[in-house]
Amino acid sequence: MTSVPRDVLKFPLASRALLESYLPPVDQSQNDGHSYPFTTVTFANSLDSQLALSPGTQTVLSGPHSKAMTHYLRSRHDAILIGVGTAIADNPGLNCRIEGVGGYGSEGLDGQPRPIIIDPQARWDFTEKHKIFQLAREGKGRAPYIITTLASPPAEQRAILARAGGKFITLAPAQDVNQKLLWTEILKAISMEGLRSVMIEGGAAVINSLLVPEYFSVISSVIITIAPTWLGEGGVVVSPPRRTEDGKAISAARLKHVEWHPFGEDIVLCGDFKE
Amino acid sequence: MTSVPRDVLKFPLASRALLESYLPPVDQSQNDGHSYPFTTVTFANSLDSQLALSPGTQTVLSGPHSKAMTHYLRSRHDAILIGVGTAIADNPGLNCRIEGVGGYGSEGLDGQPRPIIIDPQARWDFTEKHKIFQLAREGKGRAPYIITTLASPPAEQRAILARAGGKFITLAPAQDVNQKLLWTEILKAISMEGLRSVMIEGGAAVINSLLVPEYFSVISSVIITIAPTWLGEGGVVVSPPRRTEDGKAISAARLKHVEWHPFGEDIVLCGDFKE
Repeated sequence: MTSVPRDVLKFPLASRALLESYLPPVDQSQNDGHSYPFTTVTFANSLDSQLALSPGTQTVLSGPHSKAMTHYLRSRHDAILIGVGTAIADNPGLNCRIEGVGGYGSEGLDGQPRPIIIDPQARWDFTEKHKIFQLAREGKGRAPYIITTLASPPAEQRAILARAGGKFITLAPAQDVNQKLLWTEILKAISMEGLRSVMIEGGAAVINSLLVPEYFSVISSVIITIAPTWLGEGGVVVSPPRRTEDGKAISAARLKHVEWHPFGEDIVLCGDFKE
Repeated sequence: MTSVPRDVLKFPLASRALLESYLPPVDQSQNDGHSYPFTTVTFANSLDSQLALSPGTQTVLSGPHSKAMTHYLRSRHDAILIGVGTAIADNPGLNCRIEGVGGYGSEGLDGQPRPIIIDPQARWDFTEKHKIFQLAREGKGRAPYIITTLASPPAEQRAILARAGGKFITLAPAQDVNQKLLWTEILKAISMEGLRSVMIEGGAAVINSLLVPEYFSVISSVIITIAPTWLGEGGVVVSPPRRTEDGKAISAARLKHVEWHPFGEDIVLCGDFKE
């Protein structure tokens, strides 16, 4: 029998049922043959739409129930994606600690998502001591895939990734928009790896660049936790770029098929951009 | 029998019950003898904590159910308060259109709140054609009280107010904080007028100046509607001033006794700052 680490999390069945229609199908082979993975955008913010008090700080916003929810969502996706800023700031584990997944009550890595880090310039200067590699060594998570635009990322980092079972994936930057990576290209690359679903967790730059009309069709669902707290001016804000129509500002993005579910003191908002 | 205007609003009893514990007592004489009125802070914002797309524009954020809620809340307060910026931008009616209040199904002005406008420099250049005075003439609302720091506000405006049944109230500005009015002084002045409850509706400058620790004890309840929409960067943001402790940023304000109630596509958050 596998021992269960002490930091294992539980997420009640009744709560799981509330989220089900916003999650990838349990039988993910339903998504086979699609160009894009099932893409869930999910994060927790304050009443003033902030992820953290300042860039590079981790701010505990949501309660324990929301934390368990995040880990349950991770167990339901093949991959979990963050931007390089968050990787550098948080030294995150990016694994899943829900009871019963690989490393938390069962053998192997079943239920452990593949971490994906968007790092166009390969800025993340990780070593084997970083949490994500520790967890991979302990059989509690997978090594990351790092999406970059560099044809030859640093050899040292390549070696660390190779030993842990991760890798760099090099994509061509879009020529027309400041050498940025296009989300459509990122999502296609994830799909090409056989990853049929991805949960995009942050940070603010990642989320703000996604919540624009050109990407509405590749976002399968949005799950946001809101805590009843104002962080106050000057924090890290989720707010998509301004959108205009005939020179007039219009609402940047409106969720459809909306459901709100109270979880402890927080609220969870589910929705999508489907017609 | 009184005719009922076409723009009358209805707010279901079941919804009223959900809000009851965050509202002034039905028998407001319970508040007699207090220095401060029962003070409710209430507004509607987007997921990115914005009241409007830009200063001086009115942005329809919340659905019809939320609009009816706002008017129901107005019927439950003796006064309704806004800042001069909102008065200038919106030319608001500041009356109550819930079925059964004065002008909307009954004689007199029962259930019509007293509009209070905070206008330290008497900047609001209103005439008798402004909506608030039209409604007062039609018996569908009360004339405003305007709180100013000017000892002698403009004679023309004084005359308009006097004819309609409103007035200027002159308060001394605080000497220590940039000649601003203190909320404690404003609320005391409202109480001195025999108004036992006040609903503070906006705009952002008013709300941000209120959501600070020194005023937590005079805020009786907070009722916020959140619409599942991001307005996008550059709008009018609710976010209180940054707060620090030992030089480190901390959360600016956290609501207690929190309840979340879905109303149509929107969510209504109720809470307070009581210990």
